[in-house]
Amino acid sequence: MTETIELSCPLPFSRYERVVLAHGGGGRVMQQLIRGLFVEAFDSPELRQGHDGATLDLPGPIAMTTDAFVVHPLFFPGGDIGSLSVHGTVNDLAMCGARPQYLSASFVLEEGLLMTTLERVVNSMAKAARAADVRIVTGDTKVVERGKGDGVFITTAGVGQVVAKATIGPAAIQPGDAIVVNGPIGDHGMAVMAEREQIDTGGLLESDSASVVPQVMALLGAGIDVHCLRDLTRGGLASCLNEIADGAGLGIRIEDESIPVRETVADVCELLGLDPTYVACEGRFIAIVPQAEVGRALDILGTTQNGVAPAHIGEVTAGDGGNVIRHTALGGEHLLDMLSGEQLPRIC
Amino acid sequence: MTETIELSCPLPFSRYERVVLAHGGGGRVMQQLIRGLFVEAFDSPELRQGHDGATLDLPGPIAMTTDAFVVHPLFFPGGDIGSLSVHGTVNDLAMCGARPQYLSASFVLEEGLLMTTLERVVNSMAKAARAADVRIVTGDTKVVERGKGDGVFITTAGVGQVVAKATIGPAAIQPGDAIVVNGPIGDHGMAVMAEREQIDTGGLLESDSASVVPQVMALLGAGIDVHCLRDLTRGGLASCLNEIADGAGLGIRIEDESIPVRETVADVCELLGLDPTYVACEGRFIAIVPQAEVGRALDILGTTQNGVAPAHIGEVTAGDGGNVIRHTALGGEHLLDMLSGEQLPRIC
Repeated sequence: MTETIELSCPLPFSRYERVVLAHGGGGRVMQQLIRGLFVEAFDSPELRQGHDGATLDLPGPIAMTTDAFVVHPLFFPGGDIGSLSVHGTVNDLAMCGARPQYLSASFVLEEGLLMTTLERVVNSMAKAARAADVRIVTGDTKVVERGKGDGVFITTAGVGQVVAKATIGPAAIQPGDAIVVNGPIGDHGMAVMAEREQIDTGGLLESDSASVVPQVMALLGAGIDVHCLRDLTRGGLASCLNEIADGAGLGIRIEDESIPVRETVADVCELLGLDPTYVACEGRFIAIVPQAEVGRALDILGTTQNGVAPAHIGEVTAGDGGNVIRHTALGGEHLLDMLSGEQLPRIC
Repeated sequence: MTETIELSCPLPFSRYERVVLAHGGGGRVMQQLIRGLFVEAFDSPELRQGHDGATLDLPGPIAMTTDAFVVHPLFFPGGDIGSLSVHGTVNDLAMCGARPQYLSASFVLEEGLLMTTLERVVNSMAKAARAADVRIVTGDTKVVERGKGDGVFITTAGVGQVVAKATIGPAAIQPGDAIVVNGPIGDHGMAVMAEREQIDTGGLLESDSASVVPQVMALLGAGIDVHCLRDLTRGGLASCLNEIADGAGLGIRIEDESIPVRETVADVCELLGLDPTYVACEGRFIAIVPQAEVGRALDILGTTQNGVAPAHIGEVTAGDGGNVIRHTALGGEHLLDMLSGEQLPRIC
C-alpha cells in the first residue's frame, strides 16, 4: 500500500492486518477505524454525533469513576481486556450506590497490534456494555510506536445516577454490622496467572469478571440498609477489608472457614505460594449491612446470581481499631494485613 | 530496600527514586503513592474520600469526554503531558458548550520512571486543573513492566454542565456563517517536534497548550449565537474544517492569507516539509458564528486572551458540498483535504 493511495482514499480499517501509526494520526485513516470499528461496535447515538464529547441527560447527583486496564495476557479464560474494562468501571459505580449509565473509552494501541485482536477486544467490550445496560458515549484512540506499549491499554470512565438514599462508605459502618461476600474469591487473578504461566487447570478455572450491578441494585431496591460496598479488585479481600477498617477506625473480624474459595483456586494458589485473600476478583464485592438484614441480603444475592453462592464472612467490631483479624479453623487468630507491594502484576 | 521492610512499613513514595511494580499493586506501596502524591497534588474533597468513585452534584444535561495522552517527549516548551491532559479534556468539554467541572485521571506508568518526573507531571496537572477551575475527583494508577510502556500515559475524562442554550455542532452551521480562529495555529505541534528533533528555535517556539474555557464562556455569556466550536488538535485546522464540512454537508472556503501563523512556526514547518494547516494546536479553536456577529466575536476573543489575536479566516458556503476550499494569496484556489495518515506521531 503506497502513501499515494492512502492519501487519496484510505482503506477500510479491516483491510489493515495491523495497527499503524496513522490509526492514531487524526486523519482519514483514524476516522476509518473509529467509524468502521468503534462506532459500529458500540452503536450509541452519542458516538454517532462524531463530536469530541457527548451530551447526556443525567439528573444529579451523579457518581464518576475511572480505571485503566493493562491486563496481560489480553485474553484469559472467562474474559478479556475488553469485557474487563466495562465490568471494572460499572462495578466501581455500583460500589458508589449508583446505576451506571454512560462510559467513555480511551485506547492506547501499540503499532503492529493485529487488527483482528483489536476487533475481538472491541466487540467483547460492546457486548459487555450491552449486558450491563450502559452506553459508550465518547472515546479516544492513540497509537504508540512498537515497543512503547503492549498491545492494547484501555481506560474507561463512567458516570451514573446515585440511587442509594443514604451515604455508602466506610464512615457509615457500625460495630455489629455483618460482612457478606457475593461469591468465591480469587478466580480472576488465578485465571489470569494460570493463563500467563501456562498452568493447566483442566478448564476448571475461569475469571469471575462480571457486572455486579444487578446484585447491588437488587440489594438497594429491596430497601436493605447497605452501609458499605467495595469490590475485591487489586489487593483482594484482605486489602479491601483493611481499607474499610482503616477508613472507619473500627475493627473487622472474619472467619477463615466461611470465606468461599473454589478448590481449583486454592490449588493454584498453593502451587504459586499465594494467599487467596490477597488475590483480585473482578466480579466479587462485599456488602456491609446491619446484622438483622444479613439473611435477606444473602437471599437476594443468591437469587440474582447464576449458581454463585454468597457468604456471611465476618463482623465489624468496636475494638481492634482499624485492624482486620482473621480467625482460623483451628481457633487461632492473627492480623490480616493489607497487601504491601505487588503480588500479581497486570491482572487488571 | 528489602521485601521485609516493604511488607512491614512501606516507604513514603518520595523515598523511591523510581516507580516499581508495587506502585500499581493495590497494596500499601500504591496507597502511599496515591495519598502522598496524587491526593496531595489534586487536593479535592472527592479524592480524599478514598473511594473508587466520586459523587458529584451536577444538574443535567451534562457533557462527557475523554482523551488519552501519550505525548513524547513528556516535557516541551510551553507545557508537559500533565498540563496537556487537563487542557485537552477541558477544551473538549468547552467545544460541547459545557463548563468543565470534574475530571478523572488515570495513569499508566512504566516501571523505572523517575519519581521526580512523575511528581513534576502531577504537580503541573494539578496547577492546570486549578487554573481551569476543575477538580480531579477520581483516578487510577497502573504500572507496567519496563519496555511495555513509555514513561507516563495519562487518560483524563471530564464532565461538565452544558451552558449553551442551542445545540452546538456541524448540523447547526449555515451558509454565510463566518469562521473565526482564536489565535495563530501550529505552535503546539511544532514546539513538540522541535523539542523531539532538537531543532534550535532560539526560545521563540512555545506550545499553545491552554484552557480555552474562558474564551468559550465569554462568547456564550455575551449571547453570541455560536453554531459550532471545534478545537484544532490532531490533524490541525484542515482536518477540523473537513470534519465540520462533511458533517454539515456544506462547503467551507478559507483565505490562506488570513490564517494566522507565527513566523517561527512557518519556518520550522518549512524545514520539516509540513503544512501548518495540518499541525495540531492545544489551545486553539474555531468558532462558527453568524456573519453579523463576527465583529463582536473577534472583540470578545481578543480581550479574553493575553496578546493572542483572533482572526476571521473564512465562510460557510452552500455549494462545494462537504469540501474545504483554500484561496491562496495569488488568487488560486484548491481543495484543502483532510489529513490522511499520521503526520506527527505522539504530539498529544
